[in-house]
Amino acid sequence: MNAQEKPKVLIIIFGATGDLAKRKLYPSIYRLVRNETISQDFAVVGLARRNWSDDVYRQNVMESVEQAFGDCEELESFASHFHYQSFDVTDEGNYLQVKELVEKLESEYDTNGNRLFYLAMAPEFFGSIANNLKEYGLKETAGWTRLIIEKPFGHDLKTAKELNSQIREAFDEEQIYRIDHYLGKQMVQNIEVIRFANGIFEHLWNNRFISNIQITSSETLGVEDRSRYYDDSGAIRDMVQNHMLQMVALLAMEPPIKLTTDEIRSEKIKVLRALRQLEPDHVHEHFVRGQYGSGVVNDEEVIGYRKESEDLVFSNTETFVAGKILIDNYRWAGVPFYIRTGKRMSEKRTKIVIEFKDIPMNLYFKSDREHHPNLLVINIQPDEGIALYLNAKKAGAEALAEPIELSYKQGAMPAINTPEAYEKLLYDSMIGDATNFTHWDEVALSWKYIDPILQVWQNEQPNFPNYESGSMGPKKSDKLLGQDGFHWWEV
Amino acid sequence: MNAQEKPKVLIIIFGATGDLAKRKLYPSIYRLVRNETISQDFAVVGLARRNWSDDVYRQNVMESVEQAFGDCEELESFASHFHYQSFDVTDEGNYLQVKELVEKLESEYDTNGNRLFYLAMAPEFFGSIANNLKEYGLKETAGWTRLIIEKPFGHDLKTAKELNSQIREAFDEEQIYRIDHYLGKQMVQNIEVIRFANGIFEHLWNNRFISNIQITSSETLGVEDRSRYYDDSGAIRDMVQNHMLQMVALLAMEPPIKLTTDEIRSEKIKVLRALRQLEPDHVHEHFVRGQYGSGVVNDEEVIGYRKESEDLVFSNTETFVAGKILIDNYRWAGVPFYIRTGKRMSEKRTKIVIEFKDIPMNLYFKSDREHHPNLLVINIQPDEGIALYLNAKKAGAEALAEPIELSYKQGAMPAINTPEAYEKLLYDSMIGDATNFTHWDEVALSWKYIDPILQVWQNEQPNFPNYESGSMGPKKSDKLLGQDGFHWWEV
Repeated sequence: MNAQEKPKVLIIIFGATGDLAKRKLYPSIYRLVRNETISQDFAVVGLARRNWSDDVYRQNVMESVEQAFGDCEELESFASHFHYQSFDVTDEGNYLQVKELVEKLESEYDTNGNRLFYLAMAPEFFGSIANNLKEYGLKETAGWTRLIIEKPFGHDLKTAKELNSQIREAFDEEQIYRIDHYLGKQMVQNIEVIRFANGIFEHLWNNRFISNIQITSSETLGVEDRSRYYDDSGAIRDMVQNHMLQMVALLAMEPPIKLTTDEIRSEKIKVLRALRQLEPDHVHEHFVRGQYGSGVVNDEEVIGYRKESEDLVFSNTETFVAGKILIDNYRWAGVPFYIRTGKRMSEKRTKIVIEFKDIPMNLYFKSDREHHPNLLVINIQPDEGIALYLNAKKAGAEALAEPIELSYKQGAMPAINTPEAYEKLLYDSMIGDATNFTHWDEVALSWKYIDPILQVWQNEQPNFPNYESGSMGPKKSDKLLGQDGFHWWEV
Repeated sequence: MNAQEKPKVLIIIFGATGDLAKRKLYPSIYRLVRNETISQDFAVVGLARRNWSDDVYRQNVMESVEQAFGDCEELESFASHFHYQSFDVTDEGNYLQVKELVEKLESEYDTNGNRLFYLAMAPEFFGSIANNLKEYGLKETAGWTRLIIEKPFGHDLKTAKELNSQIREAFDEEQIYRIDHYLGKQMVQNIEVIRFANGIFEHLWNNRFISNIQITSSETLGVEDRSRYYDDSGAIRDMVQNHMLQMVALLAMEPPIKLTTDEIRSEKIKVLRALRQLEPDHVHEHFVRGQYGSGVVNDEEVIGYRKESEDLVFSNTETFVAGKILIDNYRWAGVPFYIRTGKRMSEKRTKIVIEFKDIPMNLYFKSDREHHPNLLVINIQPDEGIALYLNAKKAGAEALAEPIELSYKQGAMPAINTPEAYEKLLYDSMIGDATNFTHWDEVALSWKYIDPILQVWQNEQPNFPNYESGSMGPKKSDKLLGQDGFHWWEV
């Protein structure tokens, strides 16, 4: 469809009373409607176990929008498009009721029969819901049907494959939109623009000029109330398998021949295929896990992971991962991509640091130790922007250089910004642009890379906790770079 | 001498009552003394025609320092080091008196016999002063003797050669410090650091990645009270032969093997030797001259150059020059260096814009017209800083790029900054570092490049005035770039 037309759509949300729906989906839909990005002919069917009325649901929708944006115009009229039905995913009779409601609303709202199914709920039901949607005729429509799936997509390569084949019984790959909300972030989308729209960068973007790339995604929060989900997955499944590897792929991919979904995905897949698989013997050289103990974060004393809940007392789940990823292709041979992510670290921030190789000869520094390499920093969140660290003459008489920062900050305010990723991705799914969703091949290749690490870790008892809350992770994370002659840039 | 030792020196200023001494030299000496950059054992002998006493001179020195910095500490104690003698450059007896005074002060102030002669006056006497200094024994001292000469150094290649051989009868090339105050500016000195201390730039710094370089030095002021000097020289002698060509040399030079005076000068000289000399037939293709008419500058109506004084009514002196300079060497073949400078332009600013070549393929722009090349902007004055224009993703859903500015501004305040160039250069001359002074070979090669332009212009009646005050110069200046497919970047 033409991107200029405003999409008409009926959205069916599974998990309508859940946290994700409230924090992200309702505010995003509101902005899309208010900004007239999508047609005013829209409707939402909310499904969840609770026994809510339309009124209670709408009240909840309005509250969630207000929580995101404060006072809003025409909120009631907006909320009137929302309809609720109590729903048990295992009760097959419910699907027929949903079908009836959907068909009724479609004639009422003139949504062209376009149906967007959003699975904002526990992953164990993804397969059966998908199949029931097909079985009970919810895919039979004159418009399009698309399925949005939230992470996690599987628990390892095997379970991901199982889940995928279940879903694929009912939906084609082209109809499946696997959310990786990092791909909706302004600055993640900017990675390829920075690379391919600037004459000076693409030429430098390879192992002749880049010494290493560092991706950090740190949180100050602990596990909070997600402990049940989190303890079962851990940082490597929650962050590395999806978000971090996606960023690696965007940073490392070859220029696509066109900006189409297929071309971009095909280049990303090539990167993931080139990841050097870790033999069990080499996992410890390349990956470090950690779990936070007590400590001080933002001047507040906090408890360790194992104290957060009774269930976690003996937990060996990692809340921190650092890794050294190698890409065996012509462009990147010899350039480590270091990633790290964790909870209860000293700051909340996602950033990418590209460290360029040194000048061939040191004219301006008293010693090589003082020499600061050029760095390109892409700030993903909460601040969005780009910074370039150069060397310039120190003010004063002597011919000495010192690092200076050239920076650009996006004007966006963090509060308004939070739902943006979802807003963009929702819109993309409505216009059928799957570029910023993960293709099954990407999911499979990511799990293939992660699996050996999971297996080694599973068979060894870690010495947890091994990092203090409020630090930047265990010492071994620093050694990972130190052994290569690098260090994490805290810029 | 060791740069770490504080230089001890007696400064003899010819033209002690003049504008340059007051606006630049006294404030600079004050800062050098107050910041203890130079030894407290210093003295200044002021020479000029007027019949001043030491007291009147010191009063003037104090006023000039206060004008530059406001209230100052220990100003009287500072001024007590200043001594005045009324002086007629043509009266040879005066030189003996100066010698006597200098020797007396040297024993008083313990300046190790180091003598810095500063010719801050009309150039017609440079030669005879230099010779008299030798003749009357002022060069006979246990310390060093150095001669600082202000511009202009000659009126063309022939007169410059004459002047140089006069001076060289009395002083060696190593003792002569030809001031080009642009070379004392923080950001001009930064050109080589930006180039040679950054891994990413030196590689891009050639005709494969740079499409053209633009140097602009614009003033809003008119000729003011300098019309007698100015009308005789014009913009090309006043600005291009020295400052602009020096900046071209710094931008274009090969990396020196060391940061020594000789190595840097030798690389700059190589650039000046590689300038493509203009045949008379080609001068108009490469150089444009202009003279301002009336107009509006900073919201104020101003008169044209020919109305500024009765002497100027028929003047054909150019107050504006734009030029396209080509450097015939491996690094720069095919890359035009565009320069322009003028009075009564729309803003006061000196900046360098390096325009990089385009990306090989346009993925992100609707049309090539919208495409903005990468620009590196070095701001010399009044703002000091560096800006890099990149392309990044436009906020919003579409995959479009827009230019963004990454910038760094030096913290220095303009008011404090003004004398800085002189302060640095004075200090350099005291420690014997001639790097930021122009060697005779540079002067000669610059005149050699300028001479054919002067000759063609001299023989043709220009159609003046040809640009409005408050504009960026005559239309032909835009055509100069337009014919190559470029335009002046007003960034």
